[in-house]
Amino acid sequence: METNLTEASAIPATGSGAQTPWLTAAEQRFWRAHLEVSKLLDYQLSRELQPHNLAINDYEILVVLSEAPDRRMRMTDLATATLQSKSRLSHQITRMENAGLVLRQECPGDRRGLYANLTALGWETMQKVAPDHVRSVREHFVDRFTPEQMDAMYQALAPVAEHLRNLRGRG
Amino acid sequence: METNLTEASAIPATGSGAQTPWLTAAEQRFWRAHLEVSKLLDYQLSRELQPHNLAINDYEILVVLSEAPDRRMRMTDLATATLQSKSRLSHQITRMENAGLVLRQECPGDRRGLYANLTALGWETMQKVAPDHVRSVREHFVDRFTPEQMDAMYQALAPVAEHLRNLRGRG
Repeated sequence: METNLTEASAIPATGSGAQTPWLTAAEQRFWRAHLEVSKLLDYQLSRELQPHNLAINDYEILVVLSEAPDRRMRMTDLATATLQSKSRLSHQITRMENAGLVLRQECPGDRRGLYANLTALGWETMQKVAPDHVRSVREHFVDRFTPEQMDAMYQALAPVAEHLRNLRGRG
Repeated sequence: METNLTEASAIPATGSGAQTPWLTAAEQRFWRAHLEVSKLLDYQLSRELQPHNLAINDYEILVVLSEAPDRRMRMTDLATATLQSKSRLSHQITRMENAGLVLRQECPGDRRGLYANLTALGWETMQKVAPDHVRSVREHFVDRFTPEQMDAMYQALAPVAEHLRNLRGRG
């Protein structure tokens, strides 16, 4: 089935350029391919996590908490780490708490608020799901590039990531 | 400010590999750079649309509708084009309808349901916002690659996009 995804979020062909020149055809096809892969990959990885009853954001929380000291983080730090607003994260943690994967806890003597703790079930869930998720990441992304392509793309993307990280830090 | 974003959604360092080998260091840094750029770029572009009172998904809807015949689409097709669930799209269209950007309309003689129409205000809004959005896309993404890098990345990404599009179409 044909979708219009290549059009999505892309630059329309109309409008005045003003000071900033419109994207060239080569720029546009690159930009659209990047957008399309990002969105479709997110969709596919989410879909393949569904049998585990996890959203992709849930899996991300499990990974971040499992790598944190004592498998817990302040809610504010967790929001920063996962690029979510505090209110959105709070809703998500409530859902995950209901599923028994995490536990909110106040830290005695620390007035800076709540922690999210990974539970034993959360840890086990991540251990169980991770191999399937790696398989998905390989099948739909990593294994589709040559080592040379991966290296070249990493070299190209790393400075962009750094630029965006710096902006985000200042925000 | 340092974030843990590089850890987000990434493959944890623990766990059994089973049949699928764990990501190598080179694969992992590439995968994390891709994820990081996707997420941070989405965040930054969203942020720069805020003065226009548009979410990035709103902008996407405006672009897709503006490129559709008669500037309208069936809700089901719009959901496919923007990779959203119908219920989520419905909420979004309600918000955009309240802002006067789109209008839901039943099509007489067509029982396949509702259309989303771009309003005159929606069209004007997109025309006004597009130059700013192009500037953001250039500043934070496109202008940060050489033409050779863009071409190589497009060649690498296009088959992955096609693979994912095919999967999505079958889903």
